[in-house]
Amino acid sequence: MLRTLLLCLAITCLMACPRLASNANAADGDAVDRPNFVVIFCDDLGWGDLSCYGHPSIATPNLDQMASEGTRMTQFYVAANVCTPSRAALLTGRYPVRNGMYGNRRVLFPDSVGGIQDSEVTIAEVLHDAGYRTGMVGKWHLGHRPQYLPTEHGFENYYGIPYSNDMDKVPGKKGRQVFADPDYHDFNVPLLSGPRGDVKEIERPTNQNTITRRYTEQAVEYIREHESEPFFLYLAHSLPHVPLFRGEAFEGHSLAGLYGDVIEEIDWSVGQILEQIRKSNIDSKTMVVFTSDNGPWLTFGDHGGSAGPLRNGKGTTFEGGQRVPGIFWMPGSIPAGKLHHGLASTLDLLPTFASMAGTEIPKDVTLDGYDLSQTLTGDAASPRETFFYYRDSRLMAARMGRFKAHFKTQDSYTADSKVVHEHDPPLLYDLLIDIGEKRNVAADHPDVVRAISEAVKHHQNGMVIAPSQCDRK
Amino acid sequence: MLRTLLLCLAITCLMACPRLASNANAADGDAVDRPNFVVIFCDDLGWGDLSCYGHPSIATPNLDQMASEGTRMTQFYVAANVCTPSRAALLTGRYPVRNGMYGNRRVLFPDSVGGIQDSEVTIAEVLHDAGYRTGMVGKWHLGHRPQYLPTEHGFENYYGIPYSNDMDKVPGKKGRQVFADPDYHDFNVPLLSGPRGDVKEIERPTNQNTITRRYTEQAVEYIREHESEPFFLYLAHSLPHVPLFRGEAFEGHSLAGLYGDVIEEIDWSVGQILEQIRKSNIDSKTMVVFTSDNGPWLTFGDHGGSAGPLRNGKGTTFEGGQRVPGIFWMPGSIPAGKLHHGLASTLDLLPTFASMAGTEIPKDVTLDGYDLSQTLTGDAASPRETFFYYRDSRLMAARMGRFKAHFKTQDSYTADSKVVHEHDPPLLYDLLIDIGEKRNVAADHPDVVRAISEAVKHHQNGMVIAPSQCDRK
Repeated sequence: MLRTLLLCLAITCLMACPRLASNANAADGDAVDRPNFVVIFCDDLGWGDLSCYGHPSIATPNLDQMASEGTRMTQFYVAANVCTPSRAALLTGRYPVRNGMYGNRRVLFPDSVGGIQDSEVTIAEVLHDAGYRTGMVGKWHLGHRPQYLPTEHGFENYYGIPYSNDMDKVPGKKGRQVFADPDYHDFNVPLLSGPRGDVKEIERPTNQNTITRRYTEQAVEYIREHESEPFFLYLAHSLPHVPLFRGEAFEGHSLAGLYGDVIEEIDWSVGQILEQIRKSNIDSKTMVVFTSDNGPWLTFGDHGGSAGPLRNGKGTTFEGGQRVPGIFWMPGSIPAGKLHHGLASTLDLLPTFASMAGTEIPKDVTLDGYDLSQTLTGDAASPRETFFYYRDSRLMAARMGRFKAHFKTQDSYTADSKVVHEHDPPLLYDLLIDIGEKRNVAADHPDVVRAISEAVKHHQNGMVIAPSQCDRK
Repeated sequence: MLRTLLLCLAITCLMACPRLASNANAADGDAVDRPNFVVIFCDDLGWGDLSCYGHPSIATPNLDQMASEGTRMTQFYVAANVCTPSRAALLTGRYPVRNGMYGNRRVLFPDSVGGIQDSEVTIAEVLHDAGYRTGMVGKWHLGHRPQYLPTEHGFENYYGIPYSNDMDKVPGKKGRQVFADPDYHDFNVPLLSGPRGDVKEIERPTNQNTITRRYTEQAVEYIREHESEPFFLYLAHSLPHVPLFRGEAFEGHSLAGLYGDVIEEIDWSVGQILEQIRKSNIDSKTMVVFTSDNGPWLTFGDHGGSAGPLRNGKGTTFEGGQRVPGIFWMPGSIPAGKLHHGLASTLDLLPTFASMAGTEIPKDVTLDGYDLSQTLTGDAASPRETFFYYRDSRLMAARMGRFKAHFKTQDSYTADSKVVHEHDPPLLYDLLIDIGEKRNVAADHPDVVRAISEAVKHHQNGMVIAPSQCDRK
């Protein structure tokens, strides 16, 4: 056990070093040349919300099929448990504390003045520089002032809403009443559209009843138009974040009520996208990733999702807050029907895509992600051995291999959520055995506690915390 | 809503009537003539313990494959939340209160004098009378005195242990210490084997390290030997009930520790059985059912399983206690990759098998099960609209369609488990939306509460409670 741990620690220290960008060199002889990338990113969809992840009453046949044709990850993480920082981490491959997209306000609001900085390098920029066409459809939430829009950060085109679908609430309607039986007129969210330099507000309030269908149509059309050139499409659904909306065709579609209807419309959308990819005959050279920005918003009850057997949800650093579905699909390259228990994160998408596209990441960029290309398309173990859980700028917990140490815990969106519980020694959970984080085994594994604490120190030594964009005034 | 409810109530009252056995008449033109039946019944395996039901670290590729080639039920129930009554219900199609296999002691113990009565008609008897060969491998737990053994109740052959694998604890070792790092010598459980009239003890204590492998070998051999005649094989694994054991080949097999190893050996066993069925070229005429006798024994921590997103576990009438995996496989007859959200129960196996075998159930038998043959092999909705949850002889809760009413709740195996909480009006949960039984909606649905209460009354009017066999002295 001790030998394993020392080895683990050695590997981890190596891995935990802020990695300077290196020449992407993952492609082997069989690798697809410059594959397309499609990222489907949901909002507040929980680990347990898909039938292939065990939901007992929501039916997601298209996602189940995608999983059976691809790889389903069970230990896949987002780098934050709320919206703005999670999105920033996916696009930059960097923890939000590094890229500034965090804060006491937790996310950006319509009155925020901050946003993603020009110094950040997004997946869209890396791939666009490598000759890819880049398009975004959906919710951005990395700054709505002109200089922060997607088209200023690597995307040639944009169609979507700039922040969450519950923002810009119309005055007079208060609290959670407006969520019970939602009317999109109560949320004055703008819909933006256009190419770089010409993004315009085309609708306000956005008709959210039709938004999933319209995002889907935009995405399908984008794929059709770009089928003959390498492209990156980032489709960030604004649902199932509350208030919940779905198209007429999905009213009562699910056994699981309004929330189930919303998920089943997203599932339909995934089916449409995969169908277009097949029609365009680019399925063997298109990687599709399906995931979510954070766990379910549990305090919304029937209008929130499920983390399955995982503990807690959105806003917390328990597993339910940051572990999400992760389905990777690329017929012929990614094995069919594979279940993957290795650690992985949205942080890893940027280096993985860069590697598969055969391009380089600017040398001065400090990344927190790992190149998963050999893990996804071959038999290589995941290079990720650690994962660090932040709440705003505070490191709360760390995972190393099967173990997770909570140094601090804190609830979210409840009466108790202002209380930070400090743990010294940390609470230690074996996440592979104790999937619900119930049994503290710190006393049985002092060596693991030491190893994780060392890894945290090492990680923090290499961390330069950027000023908060979410708290900027 | 009211109209739907009235209709639902009418159907339910019809369905809730104690059903006299009727001529089995499910076979349509395409039905397989006298199919074989294999029931694989685990012990304390939870709803959430298989990867196809969403377990994040246990890998069950054979069961996942079985599900992808068959139908996976998400609302599949056993008729009791502990061992003896659940097994009696499966084999007789009758609630344990009807067949006497219940009691304040909850199950049979080595000092028990009771057992399954001759007046009860088991699946084995129904099928044997129809010309089937009948064999049982595994844990019986319906009485270990000679007159109660499987070979006295329809099985031609038996190989297995007569009660739970934690019974006959060797004196001197106490409490739960013996479970932490189990040694089979601490449990003086006998292994029985033989044909009717010649069942002998062949080993004591049973070497439980090799028991899953030996059960599997027995089952595979049984299938091979009987491949040319219709047969019913009942394989009742004695695991993952604590104490946990697995073969050498499965030590450290799983990422999820000892419990995971045990499940993965059972998964291997399923693979062996399906392989033999294919080798014998009888896959198109053999129905295989995989399920468990009750939910996970949660108070055993790392040695207990997971109910996934369902509430509580073994011993309780919450969903985690009685809803279990239910996978049905019969290539060519049962659709591949189907997810089934209809209500179903082990109570339904007897009438379903009788129907598919084209045989009759004795006319004086009052059944609680429904014929699912058209539901499994066709598009028919499940005929089951209600399910009643008992704890010993007390009706605790009832499900009607999507709703469940708890009239009483009680914990199990905890300090609080002696307290019966009475609920008037009952707690009402919408199980399809509120999968974790958290939000009482009784106040919003007085009509549903009334309808369920009526169905309960109707059910109880038709119930003749048999004397308890578990409490007999």
